[in-house]
Amino acid sequence: MCQNVNSLTQNPATIMPTKSTRQNAKDMLKLRRVAIDTYHENVAYLHRNCALYRAEGFQALSKVEILANGTCIYAVLNIVDDDTIVSPDELGLAEQAFDQLGMQAGDLVRVDHSEPPHSMDGVRRKISGERLTLADFRAITRDITHNRYSKMEMAAFLVASVQSGLDREEIMSLTRAMTETGGRLKWHEPLVADKHCIGGIPGNRTTMLVVPIVAAHGLLIPKTSSRAITSPAGTADTMSVLARVDLSPEEMHRVVNKTHACLAWGGNADLAPADDILISVERPLGIDSEGQMIASILSKKLAAGATHLLLDIPVGPSAKVRHMNQALRLRKLFEFVGDRLGIHLEVVISDGSQPIGRGIGPALEARDIMQVLENHPDGPSDLRQKALYLAGRILEFDPDVRGGQGFHLARDILESGRAAKKMQDIIEAQGAREHMPVTAPLTVEILANQAGYVTTIDNYQLARIARLAGAPLDLNAGVDLLKKLGDEVRQGEALYRIQAEFPADFKFAHNLAEQNNGFRIGTQEEISHHYLET
Amino acid sequence: MCQNVNSLTQNPATIMPTKSTRQNAKDMLKLRRVAIDTYHENVAYLHRNCALYRAEGFQALSKVEILANGTCIYAVLNIVDDDTIVSPDELGLAEQAFDQLGMQAGDLVRVDHSEPPHSMDGVRRKISGERLTLADFRAITRDITHNRYSKMEMAAFLVASVQSGLDREEIMSLTRAMTETGGRLKWHEPLVADKHCIGGIPGNRTTMLVVPIVAAHGLLIPKTSSRAITSPAGTADTMSVLARVDLSPEEMHRVVNKTHACLAWGGNADLAPADDILISVERPLGIDSEGQMIASILSKKLAAGATHLLLDIPVGPSAKVRHMNQALRLRKLFEFVGDRLGIHLEVVISDGSQPIGRGIGPALEARDIMQVLENHPDGPSDLRQKALYLAGRILEFDPDVRGGQGFHLARDILESGRAAKKMQDIIEAQGAREHMPVTAPLTVEILANQAGYVTTIDNYQLARIARLAGAPLDLNAGVDLLKKLGDEVRQGEALYRIQAEFPADFKFAHNLAEQNNGFRIGTQEEISHHYLET
Repeated sequence: MCQNVNSLTQNPATIMPTKSTRQNAKDMLKLRRVAIDTYHENVAYLHRNCALYRAEGFQALSKVEILANGTCIYAVLNIVDDDTIVSPDELGLAEQAFDQLGMQAGDLVRVDHSEPPHSMDGVRRKISGERLTLADFRAITRDITHNRYSKMEMAAFLVASVQSGLDREEIMSLTRAMTETGGRLKWHEPLVADKHCIGGIPGNRTTMLVVPIVAAHGLLIPKTSSRAITSPAGTADTMSVLARVDLSPEEMHRVVNKTHACLAWGGNADLAPADDILISVERPLGIDSEGQMIASILSKKLAAGATHLLLDIPVGPSAKVRHMNQALRLRKLFEFVGDRLGIHLEVVISDGSQPIGRGIGPALEARDIMQVLENHPDGPSDLRQKALYLAGRILEFDPDVRGGQGFHLARDILESGRAAKKMQDIIEAQGAREHMPVTAPLTVEILANQAGYVTTIDNYQLARIARLAGAPLDLNAGVDLLKKLGDEVRQGEALYRIQAEFPADFKFAHNLAEQNNGFRIGTQEEISHHYLET
Repeated sequence: MCQNVNSLTQNPATIMPTKSTRQNAKDMLKLRRVAIDTYHENVAYLHRNCALYRAEGFQALSKVEILANGTCIYAVLNIVDDDTIVSPDELGLAEQAFDQLGMQAGDLVRVDHSEPPHSMDGVRRKISGERLTLADFRAITRDITHNRYSKMEMAAFLVASVQSGLDREEIMSLTRAMTETGGRLKWHEPLVADKHCIGGIPGNRTTMLVVPIVAAHGLLIPKTSSRAITSPAGTADTMSVLARVDLSPEEMHRVVNKTHACLAWGGNADLAPADDILISVERPLGIDSEGQMIASILSKKLAAGATHLLLDIPVGPSAKVRHMNQALRLRKLFEFVGDRLGIHLEVVISDGSQPIGRGIGPALEARDIMQVLENHPDGPSDLRQKALYLAGRILEFDPDVRGGQGFHLARDILESGRAAKKMQDIIEAQGAREHMPVTAPLTVEILANQAGYVTTIDNYQLARIARLAGAPLDLNAGVDLLKKLGDEVRQGEALYRIQAEFPADFKFAHNLAEQNNGFRIGTQEEISHHYLET
């Protein structure tokens, strides 16, 4: 659930406060684990009647340092009035904070007032419109990685980055600083391929086709992905339907040595951990900072050891990028930072006007992928075409592949069954999961309320419905599209099916679809058409 | 402790969600109070194994709506793995959230996914540099008052207000919108005087001298103040040494009818509650937005029913306002908004180069004030002079007082003992507190490390030391200044005394003073001199 705990635990902050820290047992409280999951936020619990540190001197929600054995973590304080949660001689830590401190329950700890992080000076300078240096970004991302920033402080940094904007030199510095906050995978190969999509298009799980095609050709493509945060499925979620994904870096190397590829969750590899923490604030705020997005993507890829990256920017009326000129500007920025940081980067601008494939949700998407890999006639052709195009572009990173031949080469690999075979090898190397049929106990079909043509499909709305239905946590939950853009429909004909495991989720999703089903039906002339580079 | 709970409880959000809300007992959870104080943040606790709303569908730290009996509150979710905190069929609410919902433990409640507040669209438009309208600010402040905003969202609003800046029309709209979020006191008099200082100067408790002088003259001055949030004492804290301050609006009216004045805590009167919530984010972030400050001050004064306001802007190297041109710009903005919102407003720019008086902390400041009121020779002359000047300016609001005569009039009122008598009347009307000597069990003197003259005193550092010593919560804790700017000192002579009640606080304060005692000693020529209007 919490993608960052492990990497942070491997990398505990060991900053000692400047104050004198005489360690008398009488100054100390007994540590207690409070079984509350506060996600990416460290929370400490102090009893209001704690004689040692009267809880009121420490105001609720003030930030404190917890010190023990030369280790120091930062937490937000909650004041407790119930002895069964913490007693007056104890300090409680919520699960993430407890794991991060790495001590045992009953160990003695001290509490101290926490200074606001020094690097907030840089944030304040950014707020007043100044440019920040690499040193500023290093200080900020280091403090964020060590959980010294509150959610508010991170929000301030993110908003300042949107508003004054980050220029391209600043984006490069931020990318470099974020990369340095964690570990770095090394593959000892001259060409390590990777792909990434900036996201926002449900069902767009091309990675799970591109990786086996590219690996079957013989290129190295060790793919690490995240789990979905605000979308109904990430590649790690969808792959987890078929195989184990929570590989350690050692396991990842073993799989890659064997198959030239992996499709793993990146959370165990400590890749740019500052990025995960910032994302946990950025996503719920719904603010889009181009600079933050570029730094987030490229820092993860650099840390994962990629040398060649294909980047997919879908454009459409309900995609993240809505206009071609915005996509072109983004491409230039990616190219600038990629070139400066020594990663060969190519950008594809693709059709983002509707979901890709039919399934939205881990198991449904996995079904689409396996159908395409097995050259099954039901395999969604848009997913197949897009994956072949992207795989072809990556194959052309290979000096031995002639420009323009990648697509045909990719198609040969897919049609010959070599991609399916490679996928089986990857699944077995990672640890296959038992294959389950994609069924869910609760389903409902959402019907067209008039006859006509599907003129628009709202990516965002379909993603929300699938998410409320339980995706990605319930692997079988989600939305199965029965109609796509341009299809003709009769009144009362099913547009899509919602499927869910649990009644509350089912009701949430169904209610939302009843308010706005995300489809617009109109005349043939009204069908949305978008310029495509592909 | 939590200044806003009461006002919010009086004013519960009764927004019904748009979704269909079939109220079946089987959809519902039993309400439980979780005795954790989360200050200005609503937190809900759901067991991870809650069968009804599987906690994972609701991600930790996601926002939820809690619905019961047509009432709806918003909360951030924490996931619990311990049945003794909440069991799988219960929903826990932290203290503030529980009080706000206003139901009993064991009552049935429903939980729903919370949409991001609609008014965040306005915040996003502000982030991208647009001007906001009165309607935008009304929507934002209403949602903030109803606890629909997370801390991150409030931080985004505050940073956007700093960075794009609020123009004077926007400041006026924000002030009006904040005033409307709460109640309004009515005094049925043509002249209702008030005073306010923008803060930042320790010991600057002139209000408690100005109010009795002005009331003794016969003007109405019903003063409501806040408790300190980041400073070592607010007027409400200092007054609480002498009298009850947590008056209900009815009690306030009774005291004012009797004495023409009051010196009360404003927290029971539901004055611009959005302001209190925003301040709980703004202060810890340490960002200064002129627009937010003006709206914060004037919305409180408008809600408190003031018609005439004297505003004190101290200027000094460690004051909030560091340069005269900044003070002058601020004055113009206050005047513009005050005129447009129908409050007669005058601004005084004062000397903010060092603390005022000797004591820093509630009881120490109350001692200084009583000495001045009683014309005691030990009464600090800077506090006395400043209070007389400010009181004089307010007396000149009276059409019968000739311009320029206010100061002398104020001095007559003070020297005649009429101000002291008035203060006694106010204290008795509010409910006198037993008079305690200003002593504390733990004291230490901070000594000059060289001979010379006191050339600078750092307001911020002295405030922090007093606060760590336990002020304002320990009324007797704080700092007692023995030397002021320009004083000659011998090496080893005491500069000030720290006093504290509790060993941990004492150590924190003493350690900080040892790192940086806030005094600079130098030659006579190096003594800081600041331009003063007064």
